[in-house]
Amino acid sequence: MSLTNSSAVDAARDAKSASHVLATLPAAARNDALTAIYAGLEAGRDEILAANARDLEAARQQAADGQPLSQSLVSRLDLGRKGKFEDMLKGILDVRELEDPVGKVTLRTRLDEGLDLERVTCPIGVLLIIFEARPEVIANIASLAVKSGNSAILKGGKESTESFKAISKVISEALTKTQVPNGAIQLVTTRDVIPQLLDLDQYIDLVIPRGGNELVRYIKSSTKIPVLGHADGLCSMFLEQSADPKMAAEVIVDSKTNYPAACNSLETLLVQESALDTLFPAAAQALLAKGVMLRCDPKSKAALAKASFASQHGDKIVDAKDADFDTEFLALELAVKTVSGLEEAVAHVNTHGSKHTDAILTASQELAERFMNSVDAAGTYWNASTRMADGMRYGFGTEVGISTNKIHSRGPVGLEGLMIYKYKIRGRGQVAGSYGEGDGKKPFLHERLPL
Amino acid sequence: MSLTNSSAVDAARDAKSASHVLATLPAAARNDALTAIYAGLEAGRDEILAANARDLEAARQQAADGQPLSQSLVSRLDLGRKGKFEDMLKGILDVRELEDPVGKVTLRTRLDEGLDLERVTCPIGVLLIIFEARPEVIANIASLAVKSGNSAILKGGKESTESFKAISKVISEALTKTQVPNGAIQLVTTRDVIPQLLDLDQYIDLVIPRGGNELVRYIKSSTKIPVLGHADGLCSMFLEQSADPKMAAEVIVDSKTNYPAACNSLETLLVQESALDTLFPAAAQALLAKGVMLRCDPKSKAALAKASFASQHGDKIVDAKDADFDTEFLALELAVKTVSGLEEAVAHVNTHGSKHTDAILTASQELAERFMNSVDAAGTYWNASTRMADGMRYGFGTEVGISTNKIHSRGPVGLEGLMIYKYKIRGRGQVAGSYGEGDGKKPFLHERLPL
Repeated sequence: MSLTNSSAVDAARDAKSASHVLATLPAAARNDALTAIYAGLEAGRDEILAANARDLEAARQQAADGQPLSQSLVSRLDLGRKGKFEDMLKGILDVRELEDPVGKVTLRTRLDEGLDLERVTCPIGVLLIIFEARPEVIANIASLAVKSGNSAILKGGKESTESFKAISKVISEALTKTQVPNGAIQLVTTRDVIPQLLDLDQYIDLVIPRGGNELVRYIKSSTKIPVLGHADGLCSMFLEQSADPKMAAEVIVDSKTNYPAACNSLETLLVQESALDTLFPAAAQALLAKGVMLRCDPKSKAALAKASFASQHGDKIVDAKDADFDTEFLALELAVKTVSGLEEAVAHVNTHGSKHTDAILTASQELAERFMNSVDAAGTYWNASTRMADGMRYGFGTEVGISTNKIHSRGPVGLEGLMIYKYKIRGRGQVAGSYGEGDGKKPFLHERLPL
Repeated sequence: MSLTNSSAVDAARDAKSASHVLATLPAAARNDALTAIYAGLEAGRDEILAANARDLEAARQQAADGQPLSQSLVSRLDLGRKGKFEDMLKGILDVRELEDPVGKVTLRTRLDEGLDLERVTCPIGVLLIIFEARPEVIANIASLAVKSGNSAILKGGKESTESFKAISKVISEALTKTQVPNGAIQLVTTRDVIPQLLDLDQYIDLVIPRGGNELVRYIKSSTKIPVLGHADGLCSMFLEQSADPKMAAEVIVDSKTNYPAACNSLETLLVQESALDTLFPAAAQALLAKGVMLRCDPKSKAALAKASFASQHGDKIVDAKDADFDTEFLALELAVKTVSGLEEAVAHVNTHGSKHTDAILTASQELAERFMNSVDAAGTYWNASTRMADGMRYGFGTEVGISTNKIHSRGPVGLEGLMIYKYKIRGRGQVAGSYGEGDGKKPFLHERLPL
């Protein structure tokens, strides 16, 4: 692991050659490296927390100097909060216990006698992961990279630089005692090398940006390297007329308020016109009680005007602008639109959504299946909160991020999303010229073999 | 299908909205469309061949006017050649008979009682496919797109414009009688719309360029849309000292000479130093007899100088330049380099290769497995010709191209490579706030269900 004085090219080249070694290591060697990282972090706790305290102090100093600094940033930065260090350590062991994703045979075909084709999973190679100022993420992502046999170049948020340096020093020292090459995990501490790294498509195979919309858009437009992630999380929910009223209100409230800043939070509620006076008022009342501002189209606003509770919340029921239906609020605000039925709801989601997670609330299985098949999104749910879109909740053990891409990996991305495959052929000297139609040629067998 | 007068934006938007319909059609409706395309092309044979004759005449006229025109272009262009039209028709039925790739459940997990997660395959959406002047390819790719539930925007080589228009008119008319929306297959006939299409990442999900290195590089550097394909096919073979001499010579000759212009042809031969005087001469003699020029490093050239046949082929045994080991000759030329053993061979391939297909010739299973695991390529073979890298030969029924990407799909890409998946959750109103640790919270079940 190179901390400083290493050019972007050197870092990427080292990561690439380490990836070739890492890809051939058995699971035991990769798991031993995780054990070593765990032990190193446990032993280095005091040193790391001291570094983290310096980051926190610097952040507080900046705030005192009048620079904007959100409380959530300080909260994410603080590795000394109760249970956080332990969770980080436990996360490494959790990753170690996951099934080995490398070397799984996913297809076997006998092309001819003594000529077998095999498709086998293997690591992608070198990942560039750019993430927020959360010190524990470096340990988490380093673990995922080692487990999946990929090298990783990591760039964390600048506010956490001291913590990153301390953690990466520990990881680097831990790796020297293992078969995993040191170059497999590279830390980048300055932002100015990112443009250089994004140019190195000969060494870097995949970029995973975690963070804001702006960062993801910048990266997508600045590199030929494939990018896995999501710029927006504009999740929608369709409240269909047959939905159970209590269930609907609960799911809508959870989707919107459980963690409003998350990408899987609800941003647009589509209400069937025939449900405006039946289901919608209770849901709206529950949202207003949680402090949610409702940005309503004329019909939904008119429906609320009739409700007894509306007068208490006048300032929280406002007219929606067109732009509200393309906005990821990430706050206690919700756009509400009236639709005639399923088709209009689906068309709205496929036009305005961000292909992240969209849900229908209905008692009709038939409508639910039509919605789930027709909406083009990584997650399509029936009677469940959009907040379920998460690698831990899906049972993947962990996630490197959530993808709204249309290729490779979609939705919460766990270890599987960090794998690709190769085809192996084992023969006895067969040549292409022997096969085909015509004199002396033979056909292929193409016999599917058990896995 | 819009032939002309349609802007790139309209074409892409139409393709996107057609893709939303196409994605929900059952297999029978998609297969019926293939039957209709087949019947249409059969009935329209005379008209299509007449259009093709106009393309051929124009190509010959250009050649007569002194413009460069390769014989292979005319040969690819000619749809009237014996069996070619029948092969095109048969290809459509072959695709129709392939297993439906849509709606396969690949993961089922019970998150909680009454809360089931399902991962199910679905089409990617809109494909932009840019290909050479081969008229039958339009029928082939349209079939693959319809079968896989994807819309496709097709741009073929300009020399085949008349044939394309005739075939696409037939396909368009055929689709009007089916449930597949007309906008699902779009034909683009002029090159100038390509830059506009490459800008439309909101509508187009994947670009598949088939064709030369230069085209692929241009496209990769001109779009944010993911690109699937290969710029180079620089395949290498390592001749290890224990290989059977006769087998080795046959496999090397087939890999180099079976179809030298193909991307899966051999371009670099790595000879173990200890095999220079034992295995290499017979292989070299066989290559020279087929007219292959050998671009040798000093040691391999010295080894050949001792051979009796060398004097007859003096002009075909030349000194290799450094650049030869990074060159895809696509002709009867082969770079030859001496290596000390497996490690040096693997290092050379991982540095100079193009991650397409690389092989080892050896009697040692242990060395073969090490080579196949260590070489980073879409195909790694033991004792088989690199020419095996092909969707038909792999038993995929057909292919849209060969990918050297490190994500999504690698090697020959069949129907599976045109699919992605979505996660569905079917619940009873569960909310994220109920799960976790602490008072009144419950854990997830994460019970793997049978598929």
